[in-house]
Amino acid sequence: MDRHIDSLSLSGKKALLTRLAQFYFSLRDCLPCFECVWVSSVQLAQQLGVDDTQIRKDLALIGLKGRPRMGFKRDEVVQRLREILGLDKQHQAIVIGAGRLGGAIAEYPGFRDHGLSIEAFFDIDPAKVGTQASGCRVYHVDEMVDFIRSRNIRLAVLTCPVNVARGIASDIVRAGVKTIWNFTSSYLAVPADVVVRNEHISVGLAELTYYLK
Amino acid sequence: MDRHIDSLSLSGKKALLTRLAQFYFSLRDCLPCFECVWVSSVQLAQQLGVDDTQIRKDLALIGLKGRPRMGFKRDEVVQRLREILGLDKQHQAIVIGAGRLGGAIAEYPGFRDHGLSIEAFFDIDPAKVGTQASGCRVYHVDEMVDFIRSRNIRLAVLTCPVNVARGIASDIVRAGVKTIWNFTSSYLAVPADVVVRNEHISVGLAELTYYLK
Repeated sequence: MDRHIDSLSLSGKKALLTRLAQFYFSLRDCLPCFECVWVSSVQLAQQLGVDDTQIRKDLALIGLKGRPRMGFKRDEVVQRLREILGLDKQHQAIVIGAGRLGGAIAEYPGFRDHGLSIEAFFDIDPAKVGTQASGCRVYHVDEMVDFIRSRNIRLAVLTCPVNVARGIASDIVRAGVKTIWNFTSSYLAVPADVVVRNEHISVGLAELTYYLK
Repeated sequence: MDRHIDSLSLSGKKALLTRLAQFYFSLRDCLPCFECVWVSSVQLAQQLGVDDTQIRKDLALIGLKGRPRMGFKRDEVVQRLREILGLDKQHQAIVIGAGRLGGAIAEYPGFRDHGLSIEAFFDIDPAKVGTQASGCRVYHVDEMVDFIRSRNIRLAVLTCPVNVARGIASDIVRAGVKTIWNFTSSYLAVPADVVVRNEHISVGLAELTYYLK
């Protein structure tokens, strides 16, 4: 099934994964009928503000076909989306930057439910190094590369200051990290086999303040 | 100038505002040549991984024309983007949900620099109500509507649990909030004159875990 997804262009794939993740969270958290056995593409479309044809197309692509006048079996869709999105597996990760944002991410139960297992924090602040944060040890950034190599860490969460983000990204990629969840406002240049997901939260603020003018 | 922007379709406008915000943060934080007086659209394009024609088009739309072989005056572009995006003004806001994420947002210096002034937190936890969080008072959610009306609050940050997000959104909109920065995974149905910016951070995680399978 991943073959179909992998055959898409990079931007098409990104857009599809975003939609699939939205279907998943919408079905899991938000539909009014928590008890529903069947869910229709029209219901999902209303919930997400997208076209129901797109929803049927996306679900068909991952092997799910609805039944006329019934829709889709909710549990089946949720389970399939979990598998496709890799949310049913445990993913060991590290957080670079032991500040409030890093702590909020490590403690957010939603992320733990999706298999995000934070193994360690890294920081350069002597007041933080050696302490515990959100149940994990805070190591010095100098220990980061060895930690990634010895524990075979593939996912890193970047919550460090923007001016050091690029240097850190290049270090962790050399050490073997394949996916970076970037919460800094820095744009990271990485090799083609590394995936970066940018959470440019400041961009969201700028969009809102435009409307408040 | 906003006239040109407002004449775009809703999705076109959203995409443009996102790009303008990215130009802004890139110019402010990330370009290697902090000292540069001139910046070219090609430099910006490399930084952001987009087409340089798009950058020239977007900047022309907000009244900025480059000079041949020189590019754009960096300070001029930064200042113009600040004005267009409303980042040069102070915006009073409230945070609903006095947890770690709410605190991280209130304390993040980047948001304060962009004129986000957090006036109060709201929560239902008796252990939090009446205390101070990130320098602000935590009020009970029951006091929220009066606070919004009396202080004329137009921007609300939602970091409450997902199952109460819709009810809270409908209360704050009735009280006069015009822009909602939504960090819950709930999709909010709001009137046409209210703008919601969703930060579905879980969606980002799901995109990354797909690649880790």
